[in-house]
Amino acid sequence: MSLKLSQRGMDIPASPIRKLVPFADAAKRRGTKVYHLNIGQPDIETPPQMWDKIKNYNEKVLAYGPSNGLPEFRQGLAKYYAKYGVHVDPNEVIVTTGGSEALLFAMLATCDAGDEILVPEPFYANYNGFAVYGTIKIVPVTTTAQNGFRLPPKEHFAAKITPRTRAIMISNPGNPTGVVYTKAELEVLAELAVEYDLFLIADEVYREFVYDGEEFTSIMSLNGIAEHAIIADSISKRFSACGARVGNVVTHNKALLDSIMRFAQARLCPPTLEQVGALGALEVPDSYFARVLAEYQQRRDIVFDGVMSIPGAVCKAPKGAFYVVAKLPIDDGDVFAEWMLSNFSLDGATTMVAPAAGFYATPTLGRDEVRIAYVLNSSDLTHAMRILASGVEAYRREKGI
Amino acid sequence: MSLKLSQRGMDIPASPIRKLVPFADAAKRRGTKVYHLNIGQPDIETPPQMWDKIKNYNEKVLAYGPSNGLPEFRQGLAKYYAKYGVHVDPNEVIVTTGGSEALLFAMLATCDAGDEILVPEPFYANYNGFAVYGTIKIVPVTTTAQNGFRLPPKEHFAAKITPRTRAIMISNPGNPTGVVYTKAELEVLAELAVEYDLFLIADEVYREFVYDGEEFTSIMSLNGIAEHAIIADSISKRFSACGARVGNVVTHNKALLDSIMRFAQARLCPPTLEQVGALGALEVPDSYFARVLAEYQQRRDIVFDGVMSIPGAVCKAPKGAFYVVAKLPIDDGDVFAEWMLSNFSLDGATTMVAPAAGFYATPTLGRDEVRIAYVLNSSDLTHAMRILASGVEAYRREKGI
Repeated sequence: MSLKLSQRGMDIPASPIRKLVPFADAAKRRGTKVYHLNIGQPDIETPPQMWDKIKNYNEKVLAYGPSNGLPEFRQGLAKYYAKYGVHVDPNEVIVTTGGSEALLFAMLATCDAGDEILVPEPFYANYNGFAVYGTIKIVPVTTTAQNGFRLPPKEHFAAKITPRTRAIMISNPGNPTGVVYTKAELEVLAELAVEYDLFLIADEVYREFVYDGEEFTSIMSLNGIAEHAIIADSISKRFSACGARVGNVVTHNKALLDSIMRFAQARLCPPTLEQVGALGALEVPDSYFARVLAEYQQRRDIVFDGVMSIPGAVCKAPKGAFYVVAKLPIDDGDVFAEWMLSNFSLDGATTMVAPAAGFYATPTLGRDEVRIAYVLNSSDLTHAMRILASGVEAYRREKGI
Repeated sequence: MSLKLSQRGMDIPASPIRKLVPFADAAKRRGTKVYHLNIGQPDIETPPQMWDKIKNYNEKVLAYGPSNGLPEFRQGLAKYYAKYGVHVDPNEVIVTTGGSEALLFAMLATCDAGDEILVPEPFYANYNGFAVYGTIKIVPVTTTAQNGFRLPPKEHFAAKITPRTRAIMISNPGNPTGVVYTKAELEVLAELAVEYDLFLIADEVYREFVYDGEEFTSIMSLNGIAEHAIIADSISKRFSACGARVGNVVTHNKALLDSIMRFAQARLCPPTLEQVGALGALEVPDSYFARVLAEYQQRRDIVFDGVMSIPGAVCKAPKGAFYVVAKLPIDDGDVFAEWMLSNFSLDGATTMVAPAAGFYATPTLGRDEVRIAYVLNSSDLTHAMRILASGVEAYRREKGI
């Protein structure tokens, strides 16, 4: 014997962009400005209503809250969901430490070690991490840039279902693709859930960010899957409060709620003060979202136009979230992203993107794709996309592609 | 097939006191005052330095922090540990969402599904929950009230070690027992760790709370186990900031740090604002702890004297944390705790304790024991303990014990 980590401790993947960070740091040390299109940290200000609640909190003891979250906050969330056609009791909402924990709890309560979850790829890379926490297997169902990352036909899912399959998990609007699934697409997943006795887990943290008048459909507004549907949610993007670590799960399934409550009890409670702040954020008027949405729609246009200005790039206009996965005329996104940081600049600046291979579970896929997060103001974003286009051209010339 | 939860989703235990809460609520509705000695929520005020930092935070965006925590906070923690003879680099500290996540990460990074961790029982009941997250098996090594819950001899541990054993985990000072292990006791665990290639995980969140001039020894101050030792820590008790959800792990083991960093990346980051507050709390002068310690020492005396005033009670004076497990002359702690809430009051008040059976993994143990948390002021505590003593007497009379 010897002292060694667990297999899962060795298997858990690093963030796909982690290995690029030293190159970005080196670029900054050389005096190059780096436009960060590689992470989903919005620059939008957190609503003042949230700060006000936090700064006016007058308890003397920062105490544990209930394991399932503050009752007022759960009531506020139930009211909020009604606007999206999702009618839930406050007791069907369990507050979590970020959307991360919401996903983790949904996965652990439905899957044992060795069980499988079907996920359309490319998908949010941290799903891999949560799967490793619980020794769960993610089974990808491939979608493509050419097809705008729409869901493949029902039989593509059915073909991947085994006796160990316990759930289908999606992100809608999609991170990293920006796809917004139609009601018809979601109904196919609902059929599969019913026919094969699967849970349907939907990461819906970007529901406010939908463009071009597209309509967002929550899985919990569909008929016939009340026992199957689980929403994983978060205030991080909605209120530009990523550092708050406040999310939640929602389901009508009583046994599941009871189980998730027990996972929640083990870790005592989500952050108290940030829930108090989130209560303030729930009071934000619709005009706030209208303004934010107009801003993101403009950014989406800049990014999409920027991608389409690159000869050979493949991308369908993303309809939601604040990401796009673009297929570029390059050989390898990892090499390209590093090259942009180490070897390229325009007017003293360069652009950092996330190589998309890390968002696919199938090893060969996504090599020539990158994810772009449009989380900068329009002026910076315009500049960053011009740098990206020039960078692709210079990279192709240098590599003889 | 049918739609069903995972086995772990069904297995994860409820909080041992959860089933008593409705009885406490009913007592309150009847107008009975309930003294809560059942939970570890201190009434001590969170230091003003922490509130000040939070209220003066002037960023516009509540953004993600680094996955391993704010650098200033990790530096502050490294400096803090030096006072306890633990010399670590800030990069050997990873900030977590409470001590809960610190324990979870330590367990997941060292144990695969089916692996075993030896834990002296009775132990903090949520260890069971974290074990279920990762399908890990907790193997108890029994300690007793008669023996003051001191560690059993080395061979008791050795007898429980199998090829699946990966770690020994302790709480020191102990929750729920209040035991403070001597350096000699800890050195035996260190020997076992080296001889059997095991990790040694110590939950040291109560290190400030040590009475009667006893000395606290951190496992990371022991020789020869630099690669084996992992501290799980939290500011919850130290700064009476349980709702902050700020904890951390510490280890010199580079492979383990790298693995835990990847678990940390999957969930993005611990709460940002609460770390900012914790930075303020680190500035709290030693006089703060002297005052808090004097207060807790007085409470410990009240509780211990109160227990010893009960004829037939067995308890050694607990030297740390703010708990005691007392063996009472009763038949069943669960029945007794419920009876105190439903059938007993003195001057319009009753006392809620935690049945200790939930802190044991061996099913037959702890039936006649309760855990008492001394988290109320001296006056309330004196009253609560008088009620407890009267309650035991009345209960014995009613049950014919």
